[in-house]
Amino acid sequence: MSERAPRVVIVGAGFGGLGAAKRLAGERVDVTLVDRRNHHLFQPLLYQVATAALSPADIAAPIRSIFADAKNVRVLLDEVTGIDAAGSRIMLGRTGSLDFDWLILATGARHSYFGHDHWAAHAPGLKSIDDAIDIRRRVLLALELAETETNIWRRRQLLTFVVIGGGPTGVEMAGAIAELARRSVSRDFRSITPHCSRVVLIEAGKQVLPAFPPRLSAAAQQALSDLGVEVLVDTPVSEIVDGQVIAGKERIAAATVVWAAGVQASPAAQWLGAEHDKQGRIFVERDLRVPHHERIFAIGDTANVPGIDGKVLPAIAPVAKQQGRCVADQILGRCSTPFTYRSFGNLATIGRSKAVIDWGRHQQSGFMAWLIWSFAHIWFLVGFRSRIVVGIQWFWSYLTYQRSARLITGQDAKPPIQISSREAA
Amino acid sequence: MSERAPRVVIVGAGFGGLGAAKRLAGERVDVTLVDRRNHHLFQPLLYQVATAALSPADIAAPIRSIFADAKNVRVLLDEVTGIDAAGSRIMLGRTGSLDFDWLILATGARHSYFGHDHWAAHAPGLKSIDDAIDIRRRVLLALELAETETNIWRRRQLLTFVVIGGGPTGVEMAGAIAELARRSVSRDFRSITPHCSRVVLIEAGKQVLPAFPPRLSAAAQQALSDLGVEVLVDTPVSEIVDGQVIAGKERIAAATVVWAAGVQASPAAQWLGAEHDKQGRIFVERDLRVPHHERIFAIGDTANVPGIDGKVLPAIAPVAKQQGRCVADQILGRCSTPFTYRSFGNLATIGRSKAVIDWGRHQQSGFMAWLIWSFAHIWFLVGFRSRIVVGIQWFWSYLTYQRSARLITGQDAKPPIQISSREAA
Repeated sequence: MSERAPRVVIVGAGFGGLGAAKRLAGERVDVTLVDRRNHHLFQPLLYQVATAALSPADIAAPIRSIFADAKNVRVLLDEVTGIDAAGSRIMLGRTGSLDFDWLILATGARHSYFGHDHWAAHAPGLKSIDDAIDIRRRVLLALELAETETNIWRRRQLLTFVVIGGGPTGVEMAGAIAELARRSVSRDFRSITPHCSRVVLIEAGKQVLPAFPPRLSAAAQQALSDLGVEVLVDTPVSEIVDGQVIAGKERIAAATVVWAAGVQASPAAQWLGAEHDKQGRIFVERDLRVPHHERIFAIGDTANVPGIDGKVLPAIAPVAKQQGRCVADQILGRCSTPFTYRSFGNLATIGRSKAVIDWGRHQQSGFMAWLIWSFAHIWFLVGFRSRIVVGIQWFWSYLTYQRSARLITGQDAKPPIQISSREAA
Repeated sequence: MSERAPRVVIVGAGFGGLGAAKRLAGERVDVTLVDRRNHHLFQPLLYQVATAALSPADIAAPIRSIFADAKNVRVLLDEVTGIDAAGSRIMLGRTGSLDFDWLILATGARHSYFGHDHWAAHAPGLKSIDDAIDIRRRVLLALELAETETNIWRRRQLLTFVVIGGGPTGVEMAGAIAELARRSVSRDFRSITPHCSRVVLIEAGKQVLPAFPPRLSAAAQQALSDLGVEVLVDTPVSEIVDGQVIAGKERIAAATVVWAAGVQASPAAQWLGAEHDKQGRIFVERDLRVPHHERIFAIGDTANVPGIDGKVLPAIAPVAKQQGRCVADQILGRCSTPFTYRSFGNLATIGRSKAVIDWGRHQQSGFMAWLIWSFAHIWFLVGFRSRIVVGIQWFWSYLTYQRSARLITGQDAKPPIQISSREAA
């Protein structure tokens, strides 16, 4: 028996952490994968849970079962509270501490309200399954309350849905809410006409999907309009109170508001006292090491990494996955070159039959793009069973316009929204 | 145009209420179906959600979409707070009141702790989707906490699961927990050996499945033992505190306790001042009318109806469904005979390949009974899509022992259980 196998601690079982752990599985290293959830989440489809098209379990896989056969990988349900870099230890909320020889920080991001933390109660963001179930409850409950509301102003408020933030998540949410309210459930109601629901997408910048080429942004905006979504660009939000959004010069009375405007990296930079950008992402070396820490890496949404064009790499799954693998290879002594991102295109979808894809040299929009988007997402879903079940569910929803996961659960289905009686401006 | 169509109000969209509403759909009556949930729940499979085999949406269907095409059926999300029988009105929590010409009370039952309401916090019951998600979280979290627990007594406590009540729900829960802990997830853990988990089923009476013939009860008890469930009969529970159950002479240290021992009908009898049995079920007439109320019916778990053998009909779906249809027929003027229950057998399942069926004249147990049970349950699931998805999921779980819905969600995945450090007796 030779020397002890190096201990690798990975914090976070998102795409980055999972990518690293999978590459290290079966190798001569002792891996501990720490996450405060017991499941890996396929975040790109989370908006489909929030809009009742998929069930939580369709897009989540227990981390333990992913690594059931990798005997050198230990999974730990716990939360990191700090890092003792000098002592090569991480501090945990529940189980004390954990020593490491190598540390991979893949702790992801939460939504950020740009200093307006009181907006959180009125405009929930979409990062976890609990977030998605909360938004699903709000959207479905607003329709239920509208059905019995006799005051015309309140009814209009209940049938107004605002999505703040025109990035891929905001565009996908707005499209999905429009389809849910204006099409899928429309026939089920008697007093209201949900297809008259107002869905507003608010973006502070000049165009939706700012990371995409203008031609695709325009195509996405057109597709949104076709679905009946009002798109307000160049419109910063200045205030959100209960049931009201003030955006530009408009005051919009809306019972349901969803936040998709900004994210903030986890506090990994603070734990290490590392230099970070405005969003809290650590400025890492070209090999993804945290400066001054030879054996600590930061990847995914936790790291600020410039691409070949000088722009920071986007917070998307393929970037995190490739970084996870690159870091694992370095630990195994197999790669010493700087990280370079190999792009397979940038995708966003709008509703049930439109998408935009930026392949770099050429671009695609419309139904073919949507088909490619669908197959790519089903393909990358973790686990064979999820692929089949999600595939069937999509095909079925596509044919019938049904939403199969229309459940109002949690909090005893009490209305989380207070309806103001004030008349809308 | 002739006289106004009679207004039928149905309270509760369980099997009874749904049975009545479906029969009335498309007829010349105005139906309003009131439920405080937006979904109909296929309760016989709820234990599979609690043990991570199925997702909530697999066994729940939005009430609205069931009646999307029945233009004479209105669905109302609201809670009944009282009945003004003289004024032919029901009072609602949110939307005021509702006048009726005919009223069908199908309000179901909740679990009852026989006057020990403080047990509810430590031993949740299983009636709603939120209950099932709560129990799922407790079971999965107990395993996660056990994985990192170093104190041997606490670890044993975390790996002990107690189910109180030996009726069909208790038997199914105990079997499913044993399979989940002792088989499905066993390979995923490193520090603990979940197949050594202790699962205890406690029944106060002489045998499990008291409503079944002794031969089938014995078969069920044998099947439970084969799965590793300890069955304690003749053992009344005298106290439940946090992490401890006192049953007979035993004091069992168990982090997870599930209550399946007793139910209490909804307060429908109180609303009407009607005579009721110990469990709160209204003593109805042979035609299911509430005595002294010509136009009010009570069905399902809300009603006490004797069968041909003189025993009260069991609280199962077929009874409620047939009563719902019978009441609807009476309202439509199509049937005036007393209600008679046509039994298609009584089923219970134990784990993934055993079941017992009581056909009345003959009885069946073992694998064939399980196959019949499976097909019957998939067949009666509401909606085409659920049938396919659940079918695939069962087949997949059966082949692989996987549990696809192993999610710890809600309450930020914080441990709901306090682990006592006291040594177990």
